[in-house]
Amino acid sequence: MSQNEEVHKILVEAGSLLKCYYEEAPKWDEKGRFELVSEADLAAERLIVTRLRSAFPGEAIYAEEAGEDAPDYDRDATVRWIVDPLDGTANFVAGIPYFAISIARERDGQIAEGYVYNPVSEELFYSTRSEGRSYLRDDPITVSETADLGDALVAFGFSANMDAIRKYYARWGPVFERCRKGLAVIVPSMTLCNVARGRLDAFIDFGCSMEGQAAAALIVKNAGGVILNYDLTEHDHRNKGALAANPHLADVLRHHAT
Amino acid sequence: MSQNEEVHKILVEAGSLLKCYYEEAPKWDEKGRFELVSEADLAAERLIVTRLRSAFPGEAIYAEEAGEDAPDYDRDATVRWIVDPLDGTANFVAGIPYFAISIARERDGQIAEGYVYNPVSEELFYSTRSEGRSYLRDDPITVSETADLGDALVAFGFSANMDAIRKYYARWGPVFERCRKGLAVIVPSMTLCNVARGRLDAFIDFGCSMEGQAAAALIVKNAGGVILNYDLTEHDHRNKGALAANPHLADVLRHHAT
Repeated sequence: MSQNEEVHKILVEAGSLLKCYYEEAPKWDEKGRFELVSEADLAAERLIVTRLRSAFPGEAIYAEEAGEDAPDYDRDATVRWIVDPLDGTANFVAGIPYFAISIARERDGQIAEGYVYNPVSEELFYSTRSEGRSYLRDDPITVSETADLGDALVAFGFSANMDAIRKYYARWGPVFERCRKGLAVIVPSMTLCNVARGRLDAFIDFGCSMEGQAAAALIVKNAGGVILNYDLTEHDHRNKGALAANPHLADVLRHHAT
Repeated sequence: MSQNEEVHKILVEAGSLLKCYYEEAPKWDEKGRFELVSEADLAAERLIVTRLRSAFPGEAIYAEEAGEDAPDYDRDATVRWIVDPLDGTANFVAGIPYFAISIARERDGQIAEGYVYNPVSEELFYSTRSEGRSYLRDDPITVSETADLGDALVAFGFSANMDAIRKYYARWGPVFERCRKGLAVIVPSMTLCNVARGRLDAFIDFGCSMEGQAAAALIVKNAGGVILNYDLTEHDHRNKGALAANPHLADVLRHHAT
């Protein structure tokens, strides 16, 4: 088991900060819910960026909100941290304790370390490329063995938005209809980790960002899972969208993709 | 603040039991995920029913699975406990820490006490009819003040199931399209509590069971919210489905219902 203790500490600290905002009741007379979540997002990101910078001086950091602290994704950097301080903002606002911090360390364009942490359930998933295994807390994890679509639990990355639903249905109609249960989830990082852990058999998301998928992609791979771009080409975390499954289900999905 | 300490203790105990099952990795060679969740469900229910029986002798208990321990819902009983030992089984299986235990005490056909507990986030919501207030842990809660659909966070009770989605869309198309954000959630008890707490502005569910909504209906009402049957008639927890919102949004939803 090899994990980066420094990153672990940063996750726990940033997680405590997010939890403070999460547990706070929205103040209707002062600011709306969505301002509160932006504040939480920004505060967590600032903490993470500052702490990464001091722990790993000279390494590039990419994070969505940080502005000058985090220059745009720079393809020339050898080592780069990719940070999503709050994946699952809508759940965070709605009082649903399924959101996560995602931190990945990229080396020469490939994810070398991945960390995904839910501060409410205190689930920390991580993996390092050099070791080639994935963990939840200290336990090694592996993908499920479900081979039959009729037994499969499949998550789709959509909220109650008819355009997105129609888009999934047009392409994945048979999977929608035939899987044992389909779930609509909007937290790519943690949901990919639940594929890695064998709780879900597959996750199909056409819209997830690089920050949401970078760390978890490595975790899926090193748990024995298959991760692809949404268009079924070889996975590159810099693309939007991703598709992950256990190897049996990945074949089934390839077959069903239209 | 008036809560039933005995019920609180039962919830925490049953919650610990559920958490053990939740954290356990599914054992693929022994039994499937869905057998595991039935086992968790049944074990939690057995614990709750046994403990309620000994704490409140002579009071009827209705629970879905318990068989002889819990005879069918009996309309003649004056006092009756309505138990959902695990609302949100699909989330439980999928590794999503958004599920709950729901316990309601009915007197003369009306909910007198309601308790909803998420054992992972340790959020306990409760309300008693006599006091007329609702609480999260020890803090009083109230519904949101959002009046404009364009600002509203609305939850719909569906998973990735096209029939259910089409049914919602046919009736609630404009709400789907115009709300600030729509979420698909499948944990009626806890989601109603998130309306009570002002995190969500509305929840629309055509299928939720009596066990899933009984306790939370009181919690919504006593937090200043509106709860109706899915067909917009006066709420009766014995009906399938429910619609809850803050009073402003309830008017908007009445207007949009077709």
